[in-house]
Amino acid sequence: MKQIEHIGIAVNNLDFAVPLFEKLLQTNCYKTEIVQSEQVATAFFACGESKIELLQSLNTDGIIAKFIDKRGEGMHHIAFLVDDIYAEINRLKAEGFTFINEAPKIGADNKLICFLRPKQTNGVLIELCQEVDRNADKTD
Amino acid sequence: MKQIEHIGIAVNNLDFAVPLFEKLLQTNCYKTEIVQSEQVATAFFACGESKIELLQSLNTDGIIAKFIDKRGEGMHHIAFLVDDIYAEINRLKAEGFTFINEAPKIGADNKLICFLRPKQTNGVLIELCQEVDRNADKTD
Repeated sequence: MKQIEHIGIAVNNLDFAVPLFEKLLQTNCYKTEIVQSEQVATAFFACGESKIELLQSLNTDGIIAKFIDKRGEGMHHIAFLVDDIYAEINRLKAEGFTFINEAPKIGADNKLICFLRPKQTNGVLIELCQEVDRNADKTD
Repeated sequence: MKQIEHIGIAVNNLDFAVPLFEKLLQTNCYKTEIVQSEQVATAFFACGESKIELLQSLNTDGIIAKFIDKRGEGMHHIAFLVDDIYAEINRLKAEGFTFINEAPKIGADNKLICFLRPKQTNGVLIELCQEVDRNADKTD
């Protein structure tokens, strides 16, 4: 794990939370993005080498909506940046960890992502993410 | 806020959680520390410019024990590094935020710390921390 790529925070309403976190972090939200596959709207803030990612559910039965129903708004996950997500999945599987999605998928911010099962990580939902190489499919 | 200084994670048992996070993060715990004022035992892991801090309660009615009773193990707080904690407290108070402890106190890892009230930060418990200047009281 190279660094904390971002911390995901579940919120009810980005229209309320974005200006609040702009005041808190003293920096403007630099990007918003809809991730249809996860049914979330996201908003990003830079903080050192890491980011804060606010997550609002797009519907009432999405993952973030269910999380808030159960636990209230708050920290949802930690994402760690890795160089090679496939190698890291194999390393962690060999250590006994299991994954919610073992096959990485495209998440927000143009990243390949996967999530570990939090029951094996002291209740912490952990995401691995890797920058997608935009040139990977190009032929020279 | 300069960077994420650490993420605090509430755990039941450091003897179990430390080796697990060493496998997960692929790095050794570099320090453990008892913080009597908070009634917690802590264990630190480096990750990029940030740290992961595991927190185990030293008694059954401490803050971390109560947190786990209510919500289970998991992410407890985000700590942001600031240059001048007093200036940052004044800035945030002017923005309408309030504090659990407005007067900074000495926390783990030789830091001056204070906590914002999470009801005003979308349920996220946020710590401000500043390195203590070890030379501040010295006379040249």
